[in-house]
Amino acid sequence: ISSNNEYFYGIKKEWPLVDHTEGQLFLNDTFKIIMEEVLCKGTDIKHKVCEWKEPKELALLLDLELRATGEPQHRLLQRVQDVAKYSIKTSHPRFMNQQFGGVDYHALAGRFLTEALNTNLYTYEVAPVFVLMEAEVLRGLRQLVGWTEGDGLFCPGGSASNMYAMNIARYQHFPEVKSQGLCGLPRLNIFTSSDSHYSVKKGAAFLGIGTDNVIIVEVDEGGRMIPDDLDEKITLAKSQGAVPFFVSCTSGTTVRGAFDPLDLIADVCEKHKLWMHVDVSHPVYNTNPCLLTSFCCTVLDLLRKCHSANATYLFQQDKFYDLNLDVGDKSVQCSRKVDCLKLWLMWKAVGSIGFAERVDKAFNQARYLVEQMKKREGFHLLQEPEFVNVCFWFIPPSMRGKEGMADYQDRLAKVAPVIKERMMKQGTMMVGYQPLGNKVNFFRMVVFSPLLTQKDMDFFLDEIERLGKDL
Amino acid sequence: ISSNNEYFYGIKKEWPLVDHTEGQLFLNDTFKIIMEEVLCKGTDIKHKVCEWKEPKELALLLDLELRATGEPQHRLLQRVQDVAKYSIKTSHPRFMNQQFGGVDYHALAGRFLTEALNTNLYTYEVAPVFVLMEAEVLRGLRQLVGWTEGDGLFCPGGSASNMYAMNIARYQHFPEVKSQGLCGLPRLNIFTSSDSHYSVKKGAAFLGIGTDNVIIVEVDEGGRMIPDDLDEKITLAKSQGAVPFFVSCTSGTTVRGAFDPLDLIADVCEKHKLWMHVDVSHPVYNTNPCLLTSFCCTVLDLLRKCHSANATYLFQQDKFYDLNLDVGDKSVQCSRKVDCLKLWLMWKAVGSIGFAERVDKAFNQARYLVEQMKKREGFHLLQEPEFVNVCFWFIPPSMRGKEGMADYQDRLAKVAPVIKERMMKQGTMMVGYQPLGNKVNFFRMVVFSPLLTQKDMDFFLDEIERLGKDL
Repeated sequence: ISSNNEYFYGIKKEWPLVDHTEGQLFLNDTFKIIMEEVLCKGTDIKHKVCEWKEPKELALLLDLELRATGEPQHRLLQRVQDVAKYSIKTSHPRFMNQQFGGVDYHALAGRFLTEALNTNLYTYEVAPVFVLMEAEVLRGLRQLVGWTEGDGLFCPGGSASNMYAMNIARYQHFPEVKSQGLCGLPRLNIFTSSDSHYSVKKGAAFLGIGTDNVIIVEVDEGGRMIPDDLDEKITLAKSQGAVPFFVSCTSGTTVRGAFDPLDLIADVCEKHKLWMHVDVSHPVYNTNPCLLTSFCCTVLDLLRKCHSANATYLFQQDKFYDLNLDVGDKSVQCSRKVDCLKLWLMWKAVGSIGFAERVDKAFNQARYLVEQMKKREGFHLLQEPEFVNVCFWFIPPSMRGKEGMADYQDRLAKVAPVIKERMMKQGTMMVGYQPLGNKVNFFRMVVFSPLLTQKDMDFFLDEIERLGKDL
Repeated sequence: ISSNNEYFYGIKKEWPLVDHTEGQLFLNDTFKIIMEEVLCKGTDIKHKVCEWKEPKELALLLDLELRATGEPQHRLLQRVQDVAKYSIKTSHPRFMNQQFGGVDYHALAGRFLTEALNTNLYTYEVAPVFVLMEAEVLRGLRQLVGWTEGDGLFCPGGSASNMYAMNIARYQHFPEVKSQGLCGLPRLNIFTSSDSHYSVKKGAAFLGIGTDNVIIVEVDEGGRMIPDDLDEKITLAKSQGAVPFFVSCTSGTTVRGAFDPLDLIADVCEKHKLWMHVDVSHPVYNTNPCLLTSFCCTVLDLLRKCHSANATYLFQQDKFYDLNLDVGDKSVQCSRKVDCLKLWLMWKAVGSIGFAERVDKAFNQARYLVEQMKKREGFHLLQEPEFVNVCFWFIPPSMRGKEGMADYQDRLAKVAPVIKERMMKQGTMMVGYQPLGNKVNFFRMVVFSPLLTQKDMDFFLDEIERLGKDL
């Protein structure tokens, strides 16, 4: 398989473990294991979605310890096999925890190629294809939301994207903060809803703004930010000497999948001259959510001005090509992983129409699930879903019709954790649960995967009933 | 290849592009292209290290535009081929730009498996194998530096790691900053050397500390921080009302590969009670530098206290396993990519001894290169290398012996950019250059790859001579 054996024969004697031929054989064998364990068995309903082990037992099974000497190839392949076996099959049709939406082979091919090419998105010099490709993917994403201009970056996740947004908004309001910091500035305030993602608070802490300066805006019964409450809280904050500068809205909240009313919030932001940010981190396009998130802002060149450090050892000013192609100084990272290829290849494969069809399909399945729930006795919806998040309580037979009992809520709170434990230990299914405000533990089924069928939805309901019937 | 065709036949009709059989064929074909283009030709000296194209020409060749409709598989495979062809071959023996050190097949196998498993390092629930594995890899890394306890995380790069360190140090000095922010606090000061990585300043800006509050400490002739200057600048800062809290040292600086004198700096930090951080981001172990970086701190549980948000929708308190295994709240990210598997598999393959041998080998090649340079007329070392960074000027024949001329430095500054342009346009080799302080453009050859041979070093020198002989 190698065309350069001759060149590396000299190496082989002194350096056996980086021999290309042996290495490529190992990679080939690993690829076979990935195909069989992760992509065939791992997406097959005849196999478990997870192979639950207690942490101590799993640590023993995996023999994780790192030692002084290396191991032979056959043993390493067994390790690859073990890692695959005991990992959660997030592409399995019975994996209905949040965040993952089945496998997409074009995206996965793009990810393999990205890993093999192993480059870094900071200069055109080392990433000519990806500098141009990232710009095109960002342009395409902007077009989807109707913007004709803007700038952006792929960031390592939604939390980082939210922090970028805060930092850029802060820089726009107070450019001197980049050099002088927050010391001496008035207290800055950020506004977000009680249902927004926790990364808004984490980001505020990290950026030196402080979690107390994240003002929580009330939500309506559907989990959507109330614009009037936002307006009042901004006015109140100003009267107390703080400087509001940033409103973080959410399109598709984490738990309920609610959409804040952007038009009305925009009016409030306009009135008070605040930066309006929209957090849209839901991975409907089913690539890895860790990496899908992009960030767009409408102010050209602000990214670079806000984040540049002009390091001469990377962004030399006497290069022989257009320096605007060295995008690295827009980022707070130096090395930045290539995240655009998987989305680009997927987009080329299915087109915007294909994306739209997938979203439609996910909505259809979510609607089907809700209809079926209404036909069954034990399922109680938290609310009518606005998005693909279907939140519900399962009421075990013994508790039905007893809503008036004093310990009803306490008992209900204990149902979801037990069902979850059972499904994981049996490996039949995975779905998330959580409390929210004064609502005790409820399940959150997020229907992202275009691979899910009505049969999967029926199985889901049957399985919850089976696991919870004696509670 | 698929064991679940039956299950998905129903899907195929309505949803052709997510058919498993077709998808796996595509992935298989992509894998073959990766093997041939990236791993065989891309590491073969008979092929170019880069296929230079002007940005406009490349954009046309790649047909990047994203459209409404999808494309057939054979066309997508051609795109995979094109992306591979026009990307830089960072594993090529002639790629001597900073940061990449050849291909490691075990690491790459680990990366493919990571991508295929597509999970997220926040809870034991979704990443049982990787939660335990990351802890073990971090323990192993701590052991390499002689620590018996500590905590850590894999972060998306060295810049993020430096920011984590600053944030934790700030939290240790002023725990209230997490909730209240920097408003009302005195001006905080960070100290780092003039040769440190630019991420220290970027991080200070991002964290609201401000770049002016990064006090630059002088370096000696070798590029190492001068502890006496640090001591004086800390004292001066205090006298001016600032609060020093953080010293960022570097082991292996970006350009010169210098090592700050940690023992002496530790004494200064001890005296002033400052947090001492060591930035060690050099990717000697040749996995992707974007992802290799880990962060360790000696104070147990500070990571969690500093960064936690206790989101109940993710870190439910009534789970059926030990909640300490849900490591996500130590991070400022929510979704966090799995970065430990590639390093773990590599470590299992070669052992700590294998790592040490690779480092030795890189040092040996760097020494050989320096010896050979001294034997040739046109190479002028910036200094004796302390690490594997070999910094040098190439003096073209026409300039030799003319150091006294008025425009000598101006002319010398123009040599490296021209040679770099020529090597990239011919695709024979890649190596970085930059100015540093009052030193005009010089080449920086970083010898990371254990695959490099003396023959490669000889080629490197011959090629620089060939490309620069008429300048």
